[in-house]
Amino acid sequence: MPRGDSGMKIQEIKEEDLNPEEFIEQKVWEISSTVGDHEAINALSGGVDSSVVTALGHKALGDRLKTYFIDNGLMRDGEPERVASLFEGLGVHVEVVDAKERFFEALRGVRDPEDKREAITRAFYRDVFGDLVRRSGIRYLLQGTNYTDVEETVAGIKRQHNVLEQLGIDTERRYGYKVLEPLIQLRKPAIRKLARALGLPEEIWGRPPFPGPALAARVIGEATPERIEIVRRATRIVEEELSGLRPFQCFAILHEDRVTGMRAGRREYGWQIEVRCWDSEDATTASPTRLPYETLLRLADRITGEVPGVVSVTYNITKKPPSTIEAV
Amino acid sequence: MPRGDSGMKIQEIKEEDLNPEEFIEQKVWEISSTVGDHEAINALSGGVDSSVVTALGHKALGDRLKTYFIDNGLMRDGEPERVASLFEGLGVHVEVVDAKERFFEALRGVRDPEDKREAITRAFYRDVFGDLVRRSGIRYLLQGTNYTDVEETVAGIKRQHNVLEQLGIDTERRYGYKVLEPLIQLRKPAIRKLARALGLPEEIWGRPPFPGPALAARVIGEATPERIEIVRRATRIVEEELSGLRPFQCFAILHEDRVTGMRAGRREYGWQIEVRCWDSEDATTASPTRLPYETLLRLADRITGEVPGVVSVTYNITKKPPSTIEAV
Repeated sequence: MPRGDSGMKIQEIKEEDLNPEEFIEQKVWEISSTVGDHEAINALSGGVDSSVVTALGHKALGDRLKTYFIDNGLMRDGEPERVASLFEGLGVHVEVVDAKERFFEALRGVRDPEDKREAITRAFYRDVFGDLVRRSGIRYLLQGTNYTDVEETVAGIKRQHNVLEQLGIDTERRYGYKVLEPLIQLRKPAIRKLARALGLPEEIWGRPPFPGPALAARVIGEATPERIEIVRRATRIVEEELSGLRPFQCFAILHEDRVTGMRAGRREYGWQIEVRCWDSEDATTASPTRLPYETLLRLADRITGEVPGVVSVTYNITKKPPSTIEAV
Repeated sequence: MPRGDSGMKIQEIKEEDLNPEEFIEQKVWEISSTVGDHEAINALSGGVDSSVVTALGHKALGDRLKTYFIDNGLMRDGEPERVASLFEGLGVHVEVVDAKERFFEALRGVRDPEDKREAITRAFYRDVFGDLVRRSGIRYLLQGTNYTDVEETVAGIKRQHNVLEQLGIDTERRYGYKVLEPLIQLRKPAIRKLARALGLPEEIWGRPPFPGPALAARVIGEATPERIEIVRRATRIVEEELSGLRPFQCFAILHEDRVTGMRAGRREYGWQIEVRCWDSEDATTASPTRLPYETLLRLADRITGEVPGVVSVTYNITKKPPSTIEAV
């Protein structure tokens, strides 16, 4: 069983055991009493975890919660605008920070998946968020770390970007702020239940998971602005074609390997996009969705037709395990 | 229209216009009269083209045709033995030449697909075959170049390993032998018709096409002995599972990109195999075969279970064009 920041064991609360109203009341109290008269800061990505944390924090602290959307240049098409306007509609002011250049600078020349994660984590916590916190003087960070993040990181399956204290990283000493993690006992289904109870719209609680390193996790090799743009376009097509089927998760991956294709009767050495679409309950195991061939062929037609340089599309047919949901 | 070695236009003979008995008689006469009392040499790969050439040459020259199977280390599991014993059974002696080391030496550090083709072509024609010819003093080479090879090479789609004279390469001056190409006016369906008429078994004329660079064309990046062995094992599984469906062609490709997987609950950074299975008439256009998901998932289970290091399997869903049949 994973241990929390004070070395205490973290006890999972399963979806069926979660009383959302009591849990919300408890967490609002914890946040209020920890932060006291001070302000807290949090980063909203639009994912269900950070959205629930934003709603809880706003409930506890009102305008004393400063919510930032860090535009790292690795988001999906139109995502920064969509998320900010959705929360504005709920009465929560979201400050969008353009940090694209700093992230791409941090990612320059980085090819190894773990190094990419690390570069993004560092750019986020130390540089961009560190700056925000230092300038603001705010000493409390609310964060949506969940039970699966901790578990997978501790087990060595995947180093989640938001797991810090569980790895012995003292954020107060290292980054100058204290991290509050109200969702650390919950997995995704419980967090979704909470999102509904908090009155968040389906766009939030029905939203498939999206990785911390965002589209950088969907590019094999270096995540340059050009390569992120290719996978962003392919991702939009995949979501347009598959979201209606409500899979657990579906996305596009840009490979670094190049393959031969042909256009107008001539050889073209181009890119390959891999599509993954998963059936799963909670991401611990997963199977490829049995998409009809009409859908697969239309995906390939659209991606090769609409995304410049892409000549080949594959569909992943492996279960998790031995695959993982994401490729990197 | 492509031009032949003397600059003459090559006229295709379509399958429906091919009278196999007349064609065989004509080619046997051409080979006999060109070679005269000399000997000829040819390389048999087991593909339908080189098999038909071997049968034609043997008909024309009997034991004066010296047939070699060059084991380049890039063949499928058990292929050298299978092909040699099949032709021995037909009364044609086949000399198997172990040239594995020379090919892997030529391929060392070579990553670009065109450079790999070129390395294999050079190792084959200049080194291994050149040696055989020089030692034997034989001045006539029979070769299975077909109409599609010439067409694709001239159009710049794919540089076929066996197209030399059409690119202005004077083999007599450069390699010391004259090349005879009895199949240059035919595409695959016509060549298969010829194979049946020559009494070759279905294993030959029903055999799906296999690329000149063999398994080196099925490895993205460097074709080391280890990587060839991985794709050889995956290829055997693909053929075991899919050959019964009699697709136009089906095969495995080993990618160079690595992806995350998990084994026994722990993260494993491993290899990905791409499976391609094509419906096609003559390879100029093709569509992915609509394999049942049971078959796809069994393929992925077997490949990740039986081929060490492989954690992920994809299925190609792109049509040709814009894809090509092979990846490199």
